[in-house]
Amino acid sequence: MVRLGEMLYEGKSKKIFATDDPRKVVQFFKDDATAFDGAKKGTIVNKGVINNAVSAHLYAKLEREGIPTHFIDKLSEREQLVRKVTILPIEVVVRNWAAGSLTKRYGVPEGTKLERPLLEFFYKDDSLHDPLCTEDHVLLFNWASAEQTAYLKAAAARVNAFLLSFFDGIGIKLVDYKLEFGTTDDGAILLADEISPDGCRLWDKLTDEKMDKDRFRRDLGKVEEAYEEVSRRILGA
Amino acid sequence: MVRLGEMLYEGKSKKIFATDDPRKVVQFFKDDATAFDGAKKGTIVNKGVINNAVSAHLYAKLEREGIPTHFIDKLSEREQLVRKVTILPIEVVVRNWAAGSLTKRYGVPEGTKLERPLLEFFYKDDSLHDPLCTEDHVLLFNWASAEQTAYLKAAAARVNAFLLSFFDGIGIKLVDYKLEFGTTDDGAILLADEISPDGCRLWDKLTDEKMDKDRFRRDLGKVEEAYEEVSRRILGA
Repeated sequence: MVRLGEMLYEGKSKKIFATDDPRKVVQFFKDDATAFDGAKKGTIVNKGVINNAVSAHLYAKLEREGIPTHFIDKLSEREQLVRKVTILPIEVVVRNWAAGSLTKRYGVPEGTKLERPLLEFFYKDDSLHDPLCTEDHVLLFNWASAEQTAYLKAAAARVNAFLLSFFDGIGIKLVDYKLEFGTTDDGAILLADEISPDGCRLWDKLTDEKMDKDRFRRDLGKVEEAYEEVSRRILGA
Repeated sequence: MVRLGEMLYEGKSKKIFATDDPRKVVQFFKDDATAFDGAKKGTIVNKGVINNAVSAHLYAKLEREGIPTHFIDKLSEREQLVRKVTILPIEVVVRNWAAGSLTKRYGVPEGTKLERPLLEFFYKDDSLHDPLCTEDHVLLFNWASAEQTAYLKAAAARVNAFLLSFFDGIGIKLVDYKLEFGTTDDGAILLADEISPDGCRLWDKLTDEKMDKDRFRRDLGKVEEAYEEVSRRILGA
């Protein structure tokens, strides 16, 4: 039985609560949805329940693939127990097809299949709007060490190799997604945060229909239905 | 005696003319000054004369340091004979102190001395506003080969080692600057374009006074005087 302590942090889509064990926290998933740096706000009904289930399912699978994650146990519809980590200030974006900021930044047509997976680092700073950065920036400004940076790249590549094939198996193109990593007090790096339709671009393999937060961002409608369908396919696999 | 043929290209600050020799072109330096992607336009009197002299002087020195450049000969006040190259679509920016887009992008205070020189690549595309890119983008989108990319990095590091010390010797902080490289028909990569107060941030070592195009960009006044002073110090060295 896990007892919830004080709220340590409230983000756009999750709250983090302390537990009796200082090494563990509870991640609570909200229905709140934001886009464009918080300029657009809304609710996606049941999103928290879906993202909790989806992320728990995927992290358990990734653990079995040998990728250390913060995930310990799903506690309830909206709560999961995770290892307490300090999030590294680097957002790792993995891209398999061109979409989103990549298309705008370089004029690459949306939907272009990339010849090989592309890894991008973004410096996590809301006031700077999470700018793209290179490994040189990360090291020069001490946002992560050389060892940590090398680990992020290797881990993201392994995560992608697994997820790309997993999503393909359930009829979904894993277009792009972001990963966050955190360090524990003993220096281990764990895949943290969540993997869900909030932070992934997921397109139906046959129709290219968007099944992710872009439906909310772009007012495409049927947002809840898309999240439900993703969840149905992932949990059934 | 070089005879000017047709104009092959007109850029913001230079014109390129054909010559009788298909391997050589004439670079003509204008007084036109632009900033903020061409949104601000003006004239810096005598800039063409100064940049031609400064760039000729520096490229001749870099050649003697063993760095292959496009520079052949200064022909007149505003003209220099150069090797004809196809410019690679990568702008290489070298930074020794934080300024300009680096300070805005990552919130690093202007004037921060970087622990080591920082190299950045930008994808040269006016319509996209020359976005920052990583080596992975360069290779994935075939903007340059792995060999060319490795060469750009090595050459920029050597150019910087020389120039940083050269400018220090004439009382100037070489804050940051951009380099462009081009390929000849036989596949050689040459340092091309120009190195001048147009594309460098140059601060007086004692007073930190700006001695470059930022005086024009930011309406600081005494633009011509700054260019003249930089030229006086460089040509006297």
